[in-house]
Amino acid sequence: MPNSPRPKGRLLAIGGHEQRQAKDGHEKSADFILQRFVEELPGPRTVVVIPTASEEPYEAAQDYLDVLTTLGVEHVEVLNVQSREQADSDETQALIDRADGVLFTGGDQLRLTALIGGTRLLGRLTERYLHEPIIIAGTSAGATAMSTPMIYQGRNDAGFLKDEIHITTGLQLLRDVAIDTHFVRRGRIVRMAQIIATNPGCVGLGLEEDTAVLITKGRELEVIGNGIVVLLDGHHCTGNTIYEIAPGEGFSIRDLRLHLLARGQRYTLPGFYGAD
Amino acid sequence: MPNSPRPKGRLLAIGGHEQRQAKDGHEKSADFILQRFVEELPGPRTVVVIPTASEEPYEAAQDYLDVLTTLGVEHVEVLNVQSREQADSDETQALIDRADGVLFTGGDQLRLTALIGGTRLLGRLTERYLHEPIIIAGTSAGATAMSTPMIYQGRNDAGFLKDEIHITTGLQLLRDVAIDTHFVRRGRIVRMAQIIATNPGCVGLGLEEDTAVLITKGRELEVIGNGIVVLLDGHHCTGNTIYEIAPGEGFSIRDLRLHLLARGQRYTLPGFYGAD
Repeated sequence: MPNSPRPKGRLLAIGGHEQRQAKDGHEKSADFILQRFVEELPGPRTVVVIPTASEEPYEAAQDYLDVLTTLGVEHVEVLNVQSREQADSDETQALIDRADGVLFTGGDQLRLTALIGGTRLLGRLTERYLHEPIIIAGTSAGATAMSTPMIYQGRNDAGFLKDEIHITTGLQLLRDVAIDTHFVRRGRIVRMAQIIATNPGCVGLGLEEDTAVLITKGRELEVIGNGIVVLLDGHHCTGNTIYEIAPGEGFSIRDLRLHLLARGQRYTLPGFYGAD
Repeated sequence: MPNSPRPKGRLLAIGGHEQRQAKDGHEKSADFILQRFVEELPGPRTVVVIPTASEEPYEAAQDYLDVLTTLGVEHVEVLNVQSREQADSDETQALIDRADGVLFTGGDQLRLTALIGGTRLLGRLTERYLHEPIIIAGTSAGATAMSTPMIYQGRNDAGFLKDEIHITTGLQLLRDVAIDTHFVRRGRIVRMAQIIATNPGCVGLGLEEDTAVLITKGRELEVIGNGIVVLLDGHHCTGNTIYEIAPGEGFSIRDLRLHLLARGQRYTLPGFYGAD
């Protein structure tokens, strides 16, 4: 099983553009993702915001400082990692050790994997995720980077031509799941299908904006927020041409299983080789 | 069987924004949809262009006059139906009788069904489609209107909330198929899923721009053009909540079958009750 042993921590993958403040009549955590994040925090409520994906990290972090403080988080700390040396430092390690929750902002997921992949920061965070009830949240690029494989390039409406997308190893808090965000608005179903065509052992998890999944035990998903979650499962696919065609040609694939899930729905990710 | 007896005519449903002239090195009909349309015409090559869906019908028709003439069509005639009386007239009937091919332009599909549905024009066209080798093409709204059910409203990136889309009876040249166009670019997978959720006896046929399906015998599809065709089949769906939730709530549905097909791929639409 790829994600065993079952992690004690939880992941919160958010599709981007999540609501930043409670609206009148919508103050419940069922549709206010960040409030739910705060409610699920264990212990003394320290959240570390990592704005490394963003080109404007201080602005990106400030947004979350304000909303998380309003929602009652006692200590919000910003860890603006801009080098691998910094990600390997004792100071960074100490900050990760204090966190009840971590939040990766949006931006470019390739900055996250290039700067954090293989560092002590990620090692310690993974260790805590496996053995402690920490919550690791990510929005937009911060969500995409959580899992592996990770898509990092591709025109939004594309992904139809072979090799038009690029995939690499993500932060591996979740395996055999490809997360994509801003999913419906940017028309990303085709590029998700190409990721799956290249290896149908992966499940595609498409998150609409202001929509999230809370992932427990490494595989149990609960949908929260105001939009839709799309799951694309290729375990039983047929007619896949991706390995037969030349680069630049359009691929075909049949019998993908598509699930559309609204708030409150639950879904268990398939185990390795599709076994439950 | 909903589409029997097997029609002798053919349908060409185009996803919009089709290439209007041959490009260097791309003069083959495999990717030049309108050339393929002309090649497939039977007999003496009269094409009737119906720009009724468009708010600027003469401009819409002129585009096709030019390209079809260049491609060698001998007689291109414009039938700008703007009233039901006109659609019922003997003159209109005579024009339909002369056509080897008919082409519905883009615009608003609701104009097409409201002005042509139930008229002698549609009756005669349907009769000829069933019994003669005529080709009926439609692009964008002109493709959407061909089949039934027909979607006619819905924000492009929406379709997730119950009743956010609107469906009516299309021109019924094809039944139990919902056609949607500009499919990938406008992120329309969710609204297609809602159409299917309301009655999984229908198959969704999503056409990307500059992409088409040629439909033979009422059910045999061949993909042509430069993009992707998406087929969404709900016959084996599970977890459909559309009949349980209130208007304005998000729906869920699982186990839709998704097929992505590139140029040259073939697909046979399921028969009634999903039987082949």
